[in-house]
Amino acid sequence: MCIFCDIVSGKIPCYKIYEDEDVLAFLDTAKDVDGHTLVVPKKHCENLLDCDDEMLAKVMSVVKKISNHYVKDCGFDGVNIHNANGKCAGQSVFHLHIHILPRTVDSPFNFVAGNGAKCELDEMQQKLRLD
Amino acid sequence: MCIFCDIVSGKIPCYKIYEDEDVLAFLDTAKDVDGHTLVVPKKHCENLLDCDDEMLAKVMSVVKKISNHYVKDCGFDGVNIHNANGKCAGQSVFHLHIHILPRTVDSPFNFVAGNGAKCELDEMQQKLRLD
Repeated sequence: MCIFCDIVSGKIPCYKIYEDEDVLAFLDTAKDVDGHTLVVPKKHCENLLDCDDEMLAKVMSVVKKISNHYVKDCGFDGVNIHNANGKCAGQSVFHLHIHILPRTVDSPFNFVAGNGAKCELDEMQQKLRLD
Repeated sequence: MCIFCDIVSGKIPCYKIYEDEDVLAFLDTAKDVDGHTLVVPKKHCENLLDCDDEMLAKVMSVVKKISNHYVKDCGFDGVNIHNANGKCAGQSVFHLHIHILPRTVDSPFNFVAGNGAKCELDEMQQKLRLD
């Protein structure tokens, strides 16, 4: 049981924005910001971490296409792109979805990533570097 | 003058995490969350809106590779991916950059996209749909 697979199959209705062979985009029903859109691959994967590169490229191409449409044609001035991977990151539906959050100059947005790092940057670099 | 082009060229030093022919990843110096990483294309583009699909696919493949490294090898339990396009979306450097924000179960995160939509979803769908 996956709610987004059920939306893809048409079992659950959605406010569809865009669809092609591999990708579906529809409005999030959270109503937290006008035009909040979710872009999902039709083929199930859990999140970014297990999505194959080819499908990820298709999803991101659609994210870009819709974002340009919102800014060029629909009266928005910018967009945020957001994605959560893992419960601790706020992921609640375990089918990859990329959020598009339209913004306007009248309703600007500044993201707060967190409330403070504990480690020094050189220490963190040693821990994380991928050579 | 672009600070990220200067980082790519080596004119400005960075806490490098990963580099290949087309993409560079380095630590954000904001120190707002441990491991806050920026992934950028070496070739300048302003943001997602003007990035060509091939380069966007390369950048996202690296975002995925680093995210998996952080979760599988570095002790993090999840990641948020964030990106801003346009000043009103909080973009401050106008060279495409994708934020990776590592999360742990001890420091969970829930994104707040905005403080309320004004339009009904069916009305918004009519305005935004891309057929």
